[in-house]
Formats: sequence, C-alpha cells, structure tokens
Amino acid sequence: MVEKLTPEERAAGLESLENWQLVNGRDAITATFKFGDFLEAFGFMTQVALAAEKMNHHPEWFNVYNTVEITLATHDVGGLSALDLKLAKKIDQIAGK
Amino acid sequence: MVEKLTPEERAAGLESLENWQLVNGRDAITATFKFGDFLEAFGFMTQVALAAEKMNHHPEWFNVYNTVEITLATHDVGGLSALDLKLAKKIDQIAGK
Repeated sequence: MVEKLTPEERAAGLESLENWQLVNGRDAITATFKFGDFLEAFGFMTQVALAAEKMNHHPEWFNVYNTVEITLATHDVGGLSALDLKLAKKIDQIAGK
Repeated sequence: MVEKLTPEERAAGLESLENWQLVNGRDAITATFKFGDFLEAFGFMTQVALAAEKMNHHPEWFNVYNTVEITLATHDVGGLSALDLKLAKKIDQIAGK
C-alpha cells in the first residue's frame, strides 16, 4: 500500500537524489535533462518508460528536441510517495550512464 | 529550403488533417491522443519518434499515462511549414493503425 511521504521522509529522499527539486505549489518533484540531440533524448525516455512500466508508476513528462522535463507524483496519495523517490533514483541512474 | 506556410496553405493543410487544431496565440498546431494505457501511449510515441527522426523534424510533446499531447511548429521559420503538415499527417496515420 502506497502512502504519502512525511515531511521528514520527503526531505531525506530529496537529499538522496541528484537532479530533482520540489515543484512550486504542488506536492511533486521535477527534473530537467539535456542531451546531445533528439535521438539521445528519446533513447533516455525509452529506458525511463521501461523502468516506469516495470514499477507500474509513470512520469508526467515533456520533450522538445534534446530536452526532457519530468515531473513525478503519486496520484493515489495526492502527493509524493516512496514510488516517486524510487523512480527518480532510477531515472538519475539512467541519465548518469 | 523550408518556408512558412501562407494563410491559404495553412487552411488547406489543416483541412486535410484529422486531429489537429491551431494553438491559441501561437503559429503552431496541436493534437491530443488517448490510448488504453501507458504502454500503448509510449508505443505510439516510439513510432512517432522514429518518423520524426527520419524527417529530421521533431515534436514538442507531453505525456501522462495514456495521454499524449503533441505540438508542431517549425523553429527555423517561426511558425508552421510544410514539414509540420507532413509530420502531422504521419502521426494521424500512426494513431489510426
């Protein structure tokens, strides 16, 4: 069962991530990733999509050319859950490869 | 050489497309596609990405779960060109499959 993070869990979780910050006015986290070109950006998205599908937890994301903006939140809890931290960490790993 | 569409070309082009409308306050077209789930939506995006890369003309797009919102414009001409109509038509074909 997924539960909303406590403020302490959220602070600790964000600390452990590389690229993420809180969204203004919304209980969600966001990160922007830049690549060499569209093909690299979409290759990254494909890896993230497979990881997300495996977790059954999906991003909100925007892509234009070499840039991918990702926002994570958990609809079922109306805010951030451990699933978001897990997916964010996985996305950091994919981006770092 | 890519050129901006004339108002007549734009009107005729839009008429020939299935899912697209002009964006308010911007010389661009947009369409929203809904699928059964994330996997279907991302499968569609993958096909669109390959078509876009082949044309060397890329979408601005947003995805959340089963929904994909696509905006097309041609940066080099500061508005719509024939490339946008061509890619929009291709996307309609992919969505129709």
